[in-house]
Amino acid sequence: MRILVCNDDGITAPGLKALVEVAQEFGEVVVVAPDRPQSGMGHAISIGVPLRLYPSREFGSLPAWACSGTPADCVKLATGVLGEKPDLLLSGINHGANFSISVFYSGTLSAAIEGAFEGIPSIGFSLLDYSMEADFTAARALVREVLLLYLSHPFPPHVPLNVNIPNLPLSEIRGIRLTRQAKGRFVEQFEKRMDPYGQPYYWLVGRFESQDTEPDTDVWALEKGFVSVCPLLIDLTAYSYLQHWQPIPR
Amino acid sequence: MRILVCNDDGITAPGLKALVEVAQEFGEVVVVAPDRPQSGMGHAISIGVPLRLYPSREFGSLPAWACSGTPADCVKLATGVLGEKPDLLLSGINHGANFSISVFYSGTLSAAIEGAFEGIPSIGFSLLDYSMEADFTAARALVREVLLLYLSHPFPPHVPLNVNIPNLPLSEIRGIRLTRQAKGRFVEQFEKRMDPYGQPYYWLVGRFESQDTEPDTDVWALEKGFVSVCPLLIDLTAYSYLQHWQPIPR
Repeated sequence: MRILVCNDDGITAPGLKALVEVAQEFGEVVVVAPDRPQSGMGHAISIGVPLRLYPSREFGSLPAWACSGTPADCVKLATGVLGEKPDLLLSGINHGANFSISVFYSGTLSAAIEGAFEGIPSIGFSLLDYSMEADFTAARALVREVLLLYLSHPFPPHVPLNVNIPNLPLSEIRGIRLTRQAKGRFVEQFEKRMDPYGQPYYWLVGRFESQDTEPDTDVWALEKGFVSVCPLLIDLTAYSYLQHWQPIPR
Repeated sequence: MRILVCNDDGITAPGLKALVEVAQEFGEVVVVAPDRPQSGMGHAISIGVPLRLYPSREFGSLPAWACSGTPADCVKLATGVLGEKPDLLLSGINHGANFSISVFYSGTLSAAIEGAFEGIPSIGFSLLDYSMEADFTAARALVREVLLLYLSHPFPPHVPLNVNIPNLPLSEIRGIRLTRQAKGRFVEQFEKRMDPYGQPYYWLVGRFESQDTEPDTDVWALEKGFVSVCPLLIDLTAYSYLQHWQPIPR
């Protein structure tokens, strides 16, 4: 099995190394990751700027490439430039959570969604620890468990998975659950400061607020110590509203 | 009615001017748009870099701001910094199509989706002409028609609309249709070139290929001369797969 490994924290991120270690137990790994951090890049792609792919020695003898673009660019370059379609795409392990509406902002998940566009079974992994010194010991074991489960009961390629892992020792993890995206929003979004020239600037500092208390969401599962696995759509149509207006001829 | 107008082509784009003109017929307009083109930025937000908001004279006496960030940043800054929530958010008119999976790459739609996160009724408009010299005469009339329809039969705020307008004279437009996102993908994605130093670089040049021939998609409607209105989800959960795995205890 050929496995493409991507991320959004960049090719030097410890989370990527952790994911590559586990992926190598399952097949032949190729790494294509951004040459610098790309958190919060959503599904951005590079239009109007050329892209570079640099061979990388980050992973010893493993084929690895640093890409000058976004996580979605990495997947496009991997499939379009480096050759055939992989059998599996793994993205992460992200340094930080990607639950609820964060799926829209997440570069980690954009790589998985881009994989799904290409018909590649794709999974994005995130650990609930934003630190670059995060401990991936338990996460590695849990990624392995999720992969074993996935390979025995695969999802179709058009259903990428969003896997979030609580920041807990392995002994405190209560299990693995399929979840839905919790309703929520970000509040108190900006901190205003004045620059040395008296002009204002703004830091995005939004804090997530769940608006959902049901026991089936990603937020609930993570709070209770479960690994959250949320299957994702790549068709954004709100089907239940397709009859909301009658066709209007002119 | 207070209307926030955003876009992804930047504050000087003719499509933004066209949308502001129509919006002014419906209420008090505030413009917050990127200070430079942000096409293909998807739902990117600015993490780790401070944001600026500059007052702009692009729209005469209308309150207007150029933002140093992405389309999603513009919406966050407009609601978080400039004050209360608007009653309606309009994004566009984009210079170019946003059908099928382009909804994921589109900065225009990320602004509308961000509005939906904030509980603001939101609509993204796109004209099927990528030129900066595009003629928005027919598009203005059709945006007006869609807005009249929307105000008489609103969608809930958590269902943003993706409106695509064929590049045709008004007399050839056959009507307005609710549609679903066509299945499709981008093919032949890169052009490889060599720089003057003998190193390769890549231009993203992907061509869209529809994989869907049913007469209810956005691609179908646009080909047949209809304005396509696709209602969007902000919950990406693939609900039909939530029983695909049983809960796994540890």
